[in-house]
Amino acid sequence: MSDPSQTPARRGRPGYDRERILEIAVEMFIAQGYDATSVSALAARLGLSKSALYHHFASKEELLQVALDEALGGLEAVLAEAEARDGSARERLEHMLLGAVLVLADRLAYVTLLLRVRGNSDIERAALERRREFDRRVTALLRVAQAEGTVRSDVDPSVATRLLFGMVNSIVEWYRPTGAEQAKDLARDVLTVALDGLATS
Amino acid sequence: MSDPSQTPARRGRPGYDRERILEIAVEMFIAQGYDATSVSALAARLGLSKSALYHHFASKEELLQVALDEALGGLEAVLAEAEARDGSARERLEHMLLGAVLVLADRLAYVTLLLRVRGNSDIERAALERRREFDRRVTALLRVAQAEGTVRSDVDPSVATRLLFGMVNSIVEWYRPTGAEQAKDLARDVLTVALDGLATS
Repeated sequence: MSDPSQTPARRGRPGYDRERILEIAVEMFIAQGYDATSVSALAARLGLSKSALYHHFASKEELLQVALDEALGGLEAVLAEAEARDGSARERLEHMLLGAVLVLADRLAYVTLLLRVRGNSDIERAALERRREFDRRVTALLRVAQAEGTVRSDVDPSVATRLLFGMVNSIVEWYRPTGAEQAKDLARDVLTVALDGLATS
Repeated sequence: MSDPSQTPARRGRPGYDRERILEIAVEMFIAQGYDATSVSALAARLGLSKSALYHHFASKEELLQVALDEALGGLEAVLAEAEARDGSARERLEHMLLGAVLVLADRLAYVTLLLRVRGNSDIERAALERRREFDRRVTALLRVAQAEGTVRSDVDPSVATRLLFGMVNSIVEWYRPTGAEQAKDLARDVLTVALDGLATS
């Protein structure tokens, strides 16, 4: 990630729309922490006046809310799509896992920000509650797969959910996107390790 | 805290030895960040004068160094012990994974601190380099296991190392120790998912 302080302010620079402002805000939140990032510093980094910034986003809280929605909305959509599929719970689980890795690769900064949230405000607490609800639904899916006999029953499904998403979420620590094919390969690797394990027998 | 009248009640409080000071310092580093934790705040939390604190640790940096050594030293000892074992690379890998989870459970706060390190100082950069060297040795072990045919060859060993330790390291996010048996169960679950996978077939 580039150091946001390196780019000189380009006041009135055209082409800054909502999405670009959001991207840069999230870069700063990740680099120096949400609480430590002031609206003034963000406006300066964007080369915008504070009032021009407020034209796009009503507050720093709105930037955080929209960024967390990008991450959570993507993950929830993948889970809902998987849950709605025909076939075995094992197939729904696989579909969800593949989709979750692709969302993470595609919305890397937003998911990184989500994983840093510790519950310091109402917005952060709501995001944590959505993560917990997501985990509950994955655990329920794992439980159905255990009941149908396609997923092993000797690992507690809530522990398995945590280990699976521990593996998935850790990808934000080292993944640097180079293309859709790379993300698909990674998703397949996660699925292989999670479902079949590293052992050959 | 330059005014000694601030802490007279607990000055010279007995029972605070090096280990207890380290534990409380690490708690504070985790809760509010290493950079944001001042020696004055730490001394106040301990009910010690700064000079009494400096009697045990020469600096805040020394506290960080010793804490990171606890985490890294534990993990490196487990890996060295695994590497020195007879038997297959697959068995050495299993031994290392089980041991790493037990070290994490036993030194939870120290490993948590290690995983927060981002390279903001020489001490942090040295810790990151020791983590990279650890990962290289695990990757080498995986490569030997692939060559002997006990670990699947269709996942890149450095990706596999990252996914394995993504799973292991994520345990610090939710694990709350209640006893050695619980840690052993968790280590067995990690080994089961990592080597055999969640699928029944």
